Amino acid sequence: MERLNVCVIGYGTVGKSVVEILEGFNDIDVKYIVIKDQKNKCKKNMTIDYEKVINDESVKVVLEMINGDAYDYIVKALKAKKSVISSNKLTICKHLKEYTFLAKKNKVSLLFDASVCGGIPIISNIYKYKRIDPINSLYGIMNGTCNFILDLMNNFDFDFEKALEKAKLLGYAEKDPSSDIMGLDVLRKIIIASEVAYDVSIKSNEVFFYGINNIKKAYLDFLKEHGYTLKLLGYSSYKKASLTIHVMPTALKNSNVMSHVNSNLNMISLNTNSIGDLSMIGQGAGGLATANQMINDLLDFKENKVFEIPDFQEVKLDNLEVATYYIFNNLELFENVKFKVENNVLQTKKITIKQLEEYAKKAKNLFFARIEE
Amino acid sequence: MERLNVCVIGYGTVGKSVVEILEGFNDIDVKYIVIKDQKNKCKKNMTIDYEKVINDESVKVVLEMINGDAYDYIVKALKAKKSVISSNKLTICKHLKEYTFLAKKNKVSLLFDASVCGGIPIISNIYKYKRIDPINSLYGIMNGTCNFILDLMNNFDFDFEKALEKAKLLGYAEKDPSSDIMGLDVLRKIIIASEVAYDVSIKSNEVFFYGINNIKKAYLDFLKEHGYTLKLLGYSSYKKASLTIHVMPTALKNSNVMSHVNSNLNMISLNTNSIGDLSMIGQGAGGLATANQMINDLLDFKENKVFEIPDFQEVKLDNLEVATYYIFNNLELFENVKFKVENNVLQTKKITIKQLEEYAKKAKNLFFARIEE
Repeated sequence: MERLNVCVIGYGTVGKSVVEILEGFNDIDVKYIVIKDQKNKCKKNMTIDYEKVINDESVKVVLEMINGDAYDYIVKALKAKKSVISSNKLTICKHLKEYTFLAKKNKVSLLFDASVCGGIPIISNIYKYKRIDPINSLYGIMNGTCNFILDLMNNFDFDFEKALEKAKLLGYAEKDPSSDIMGLDVLRKIIIASEVAYDVSIKSNEVFFYGINNIKKAYLDFLKEHGYTLKLLGYSSYKKASLTIHVMPTALKNSNVMSHVNSNLNMISLNTNSIGDLSMIGQGAGGLATANQMINDLLDFKENKVFEIPDFQEVKLDNLEVATYYIFNNLELFENVKFKVENNVLQTKKITIKQLEEYAKKAKNLFFARIEE
Repeated sequence: MERLNVCVIGYGTVGKSVVEILEGFNDIDVKYIVIKDQKNKCKKNMTIDYEKVINDESVKVVLEMINGDAYDYIVKALKAKKSVISSNKLTICKHLKEYTFLAKKNKVSLLFDASVCGGIPIISNIYKYKRIDPINSLYGIMNGTCNFILDLMNNFDFDFEKALEKAKLLGYAEKDPSSDIMGLDVLRKIIIASEVAYDVSIKSNEVFFYGINNIKKAYLDFLKEHGYTLKLLGYSSYKKASLTIHVMPTALKNSNVMSHVNSNLNMISLNTNSIGDLSMIGQGAGGLATANQMINDLLDFKENKVFEIPDFQEVKLDNLEVATYYIFNNLELFENVKFKVENNVLQTKKITIKQLEEYAKKAKNLFFARIEE
């Protein structure tokens, strides 16, 4: 049996679970665990000396799971002809094109299924299905923290602050939860998934994203009365070479299964002409689930089952989609696009994302919901 | 680019879609389409002469999609060292162990993801996840016809006969729908998926299965009042070397996402310790979706991404599970295991599947629902 030497970078929740699971594999050795601070060394194979790892030709794969941008780690690994597997959405979202170039140049693999919705195999399934026909669209609940908060507010009568507090208590929200609740986390995930799905390169600063930090219980009650449930969704579509992508609070009809996905779960749907909608529901985060996905990528590498990364094309972000929105405050700003007002909630006519974005810039603590057609 | 010659057997809905999709692939040739009757020949590559195909060494893969048992076709193909891809649950359920033996002996592949819930990649994902830790359980809505009928009855006030009629009209039910509505179709699917998940060989005549043919609208109304939705589910679990497997009408709590999966959709959940529950929702049947899955298997073969089929072990079917049931008629039979009766519906104490099976044998037109814990 051929043995495989790997290096683990980062020994947080995911890193620990990866090391733990790999102890069950006789043919894979964690030769190094790279940590930042010598003081934290608690295992024989831990090191702060990444250069030593880079120069060790027996290490074929680097499993990267740090907090923050891992740019230097990843670039050095790829240049040293080591394959990289990462769960780090920040760094993959920021540098995917460059990493891909380096991986191809050095004839190594770059795998990152765990960076998008932890335990859900969305990236590998995108690769799988796009072999047959183009992916038309992707959308879903891609942040467990927000979904947990919305579940407590929708179904257990919590207000936002109490729900956030409980999420922190249970470890579903970080001390500083802003990247989750303001939609930045979903932004990164939908960008990575869309880049792989459509073979395009997307500039994250061009994408409109909006979170749930200005939400109020009363808004959810209004939606419930109208047969809707609010979810924070990432969405993208690519049709006739026209790309739409955004992150928004969305009012889903109760007949949509996604409106019933609660707790801290994630759900993603992809659509192609021949398969229709294919959806997956699972743990979007958490040590073990994310580690499982990291190791699935590793086993795909070991068994030569890796899909080739596409060449990402630069495309214009069209955002041609038009939609109607419920506006819950700052109503006066939306007078020109008003369709009707009911119980102090304004429903817009069909407007573009660009229009919405301009209104949002002028508003203060705006809260709105895109209405599912 | 290396060209791949394949043979298609069966030119029904799925076969036609497979041929159509493969026209888009420059490196795959449908060299033969095997049909039964010379009169139906409408394409140059159609033939009734399977021996010619078997003797043509340039054909590497046989794509089998007929109605009925394809035993002879598959055995001949495997013996001639051709890989086989099948969407035929009847033949795979019946002969998987023998096919596997022949495939291994002749060093060819046997792929059948399309045989279980058409457009949902459950078999390939079972292979993927069981590399890391054992599959604990599998369950789901595995028959679109029944799910469509139950949706009409639950949400659109149809009675069973009207719902079945409409399903036939829309092509969701066959002229003789008995294998669907009596649970036989689900039985085959849950057996195939379980055999792959647990590496076991299951005798289909030992498994208790029950359909929805005796259902009445009033039973669903009772369940609705009690916060339940009825679904026909396939279920299996394998824990501590103890196997449980059955097909039953099941009362799902409304908090279970599966209770909201409607129309003709399928949903399957698998559970492992590290990933938790991972669920997939999609088209369980239909020409294009099933064809897509056939071609995904074919591309996995072409790209050397095929998982090795396990050696299936004979195991005893323990069915140690105990559960409570709602009994909707034949109440007098269940007197000994009665927990309570309400509105002419009896709720049992916890009983084993064997007990239930014995009562069911004595009853006439029994309808019951396993109650989700």
